[in-house]
Amino acid sequence: MSATTDTAPGGLMAAEIAEQPAVLARLLAVPEALLEVGARIAAARPRFVLIAARGTSDHAALYAKYLAEVRLELPVGLASPSALTVYGATPDMRDVVFIAVSQSGRSPDLVDSVSIARARGALSVAVTNDLGSPLAAAAEHAVGIDAGAERAVAATKTYTAELLALHLLLSGPEGAREAAPLPDAAAATLGRTSDQQLAAQAARLRDTQRIVVTARGYSYATAREAALKLMETSYLSAQAFSGADLLHGPLAMIDETVPVIAVSAPGRGGEAMRPVLERLTALHADTMLVGADGDLPIAADGVPEHLLPVLEILPLQRLAWRVALDRGLDPDRPRGLSKITQTR
Amino acid sequence: MSATTDTAPGGLMAAEIAEQPAVLARLLAVPEALLEVGARIAAARPRFVLIAARGTSDHAALYAKYLAEVRLELPVGLASPSALTVYGATPDMRDVVFIAVSQSGRSPDLVDSVSIARARGALSVAVTNDLGSPLAAAAEHAVGIDAGAERAVAATKTYTAELLALHLLLSGPEGAREAAPLPDAAAATLGRTSDQQLAAQAARLRDTQRIVVTARGYSYATAREAALKLMETSYLSAQAFSGADLLHGPLAMIDETVPVIAVSAPGRGGEAMRPVLERLTALHADTMLVGADGDLPIAADGVPEHLLPVLEILPLQRLAWRVALDRGLDPDRPRGLSKITQTR
Repeated sequence: MSATTDTAPGGLMAAEIAEQPAVLARLLAVPEALLEVGARIAAARPRFVLIAARGTSDHAALYAKYLAEVRLELPVGLASPSALTVYGATPDMRDVVFIAVSQSGRSPDLVDSVSIARARGALSVAVTNDLGSPLAAAAEHAVGIDAGAERAVAATKTYTAELLALHLLLSGPEGAREAAPLPDAAAATLGRTSDQQLAAQAARLRDTQRIVVTARGYSYATAREAALKLMETSYLSAQAFSGADLLHGPLAMIDETVPVIAVSAPGRGGEAMRPVLERLTALHADTMLVGADGDLPIAADGVPEHLLPVLEILPLQRLAWRVALDRGLDPDRPRGLSKITQTR
Repeated sequence: MSATTDTAPGGLMAAEIAEQPAVLARLLAVPEALLEVGARIAAARPRFVLIAARGTSDHAALYAKYLAEVRLELPVGLASPSALTVYGATPDMRDVVFIAVSQSGRSPDLVDSVSIARARGALSVAVTNDLGSPLAAAAEHAVGIDAGAERAVAATKTYTAELLALHLLLSGPEGAREAAPLPDAAAATLGRTSDQQLAAQAARLRDTQRIVVTARGYSYATAREAALKLMETSYLSAQAFSGADLLHGPLAMIDETVPVIAVSAPGRGGEAMRPVLERLTALHADTMLVGADGDLPIAADGVPEHLLPVLEILPLQRLAWRVALDRGLDPDRPRGLSKITQTR
C-alpha cells in the first residue's frame, strides 16, 4: 500500500483497505457470537432465507444468497424493502430466517423491514458494525462484524468483514476452520500487486468513462461491489453483469472503448466464466482479469471457492482508489454522498 | 409510430412495439389458461415463491416479485440458476411455487432449474411464448403469453405480454377485470408522444454514452428493462437503480454529462421517488421524466398502480429505437447478439 496519511486524498480509504487482514483475523479470533446465532438459525430449521440490505451491504447479501442456496440448500430471496415499507405488505414469515446486513444499522427502511419480518414470525438477525444501532435493536439477534469505525465514505473493510461474518453465521464451526487461512491470504493478495503494477492497471482505465465488470457464482458479488467502488470513487459508469446475463443483451454494448474486468477465480464459478471469456476474446474486448494468475492476482492457495470473494475484491478496491487519485479525485470524499444513507 | 417497413432498419422493432395493444387485447380475450394455473397455485397454498429468468424476462420476473410480495403477501426470491446448475445445489422446494419466465423457453440453465425445482417438490410453472419449448415440457404447468413470433432481437411485445401474463397468473379473475383498460391505455400511451416529440427527447441523448434510469416499487422493473433496451439497441452504458439504492453510492457518478431517466408514475412508488427527484434537482441533473405528465407521458387513467409498468415501458422502447436510428444503428440487429441465448 502506498505511503499515504489519513489526511492526504484517499488516505482513509487506503488505510482501511490495508487494515483488512487484521479485521479478518480479529473476527476469526472471536467467532463465538456468530457461531452461536448460526446454531440458533440451524436449530430453528428454517425453510426459506430472506436477506435485506442496501449499497455495499447488498453485495454481501448477494454473496450470502449463494452461500445459503448452495451450502444450506434452502431457497433464498433478496428482500425488497420497498414491498414492505412503500406498499405496506406484511408477508407470512413463519419458517423464514430474515437477515438484515448494514454497516451503520441506521437505514430506516431496513429497520422497518426487520420489525415487520419479526412481527410476522421470521427469525430475525441483524449483521452490523454497530451493535448499538436501531437495526440491532429491532432484530431478535444482532451480531457485530467488529471492523472498527469506518471513516472513508467508500466501504472497504466492512464489506469483507460482512462477507466473513455471513460465512461464519451460515457455515458453522466447519466454516471457521475453512476461513482460517483468510487473514494471511488477504495480506498476500494485497502484496501480490505492487504499487507500480497497480498504477499500470489503473492506466488502462485512464481515458474510459464506461466499464463492465463480470463474474459468475459467488464471484458475482465481487463484480457488483467492484462496480460500485468504481462508481463511487471515480465516477465511472461501471456496470456489473453475471457472465450469463451479459450474454443475454448487454454484450452488444461492449467495444474497444468499454474495458471489461472479468473475475475468474479457481472453482466452478471461474469454469463457468470460460465461454464468457471466449466471447470477450472474440469481440477483441480489452479485458482485465482478476484471478489466481490474472492482471490483478489473488493468493487463492488453500482457500475454498466460496471464500474467494473475500480476496477478489481487495485488488479491485485498490484499483478504484488508484483510478480516483489519477483523476484528481479524493476517494474519501465522493461528491453527493454521505456515510449514512437514509432511505425509506 | 413512424411509417417504416419490416426491412428498413428498426422496422421489425417498430412493428412489434406498435403491435402491443393488440397483443394485450388477445391475452385478455382468452385468459382462461392463465387463470386456471393461477387457481392451482392458490389451491396449493404455497409458502414461498421463486422466479427464474434471464435478460428481458428477468425484468418481468422482478415485476412479479413485487406483485407476489404485495398482493399474495408471500416471501419471494429471484432464483439464481447458477446455484443449481453451476454448483449443483438441490434446495428443499416443498411449499414453493417456482415460476420460470422465458420468451423462447430454450435457455438450458432455466430448463435445468425448473427440472431440479420440480424434482425437489416445487409446484413448477413455465411462462413462455413457445408452448412447444423444452421449458414448457420441463414444468408441471406451462402457460403461453401468445405474443406471436418476435422477430426483432430486442424484446418488446413479449415483455409486456409477460407482465400481463404474470399479473393474470398471480391476481386471478379480479386481476383480469383490473387489466381490462390496458389495451386502450397502451394505444393511448403510444399516441401520447408524437414522432416529433420523440425525436426531441431522443436528441437530448444524442451525445451521451452514459445514462442512469431510476424508479421505485413496481416501476423499478421498467427502469431495468429500459436500461437494457438502451444498451442492446444504442450501445449506451445505461444503468438502472432503484431510487433508494441510487442514494446509496451511485449518485456520485451523476453529473451534467450523465442524463437520468426517472420513472415516477401515479401511486406509492411514484411518491417514494419524490426525495430522489429532489436530490436530482439539487444536483442539476438532466432528468427526463416518465409519468402521467412527464417528458414521455403515459395514459394512466383508470389503470391501477401495479399495472402501470405495462404502459411505462412503451415510450421507453420507442426512445431506444429512435436513439439507435439517430446513431445510424439498426435496432433490429444489435451487434454480438442472437435471439435465443444459450447459457448454462
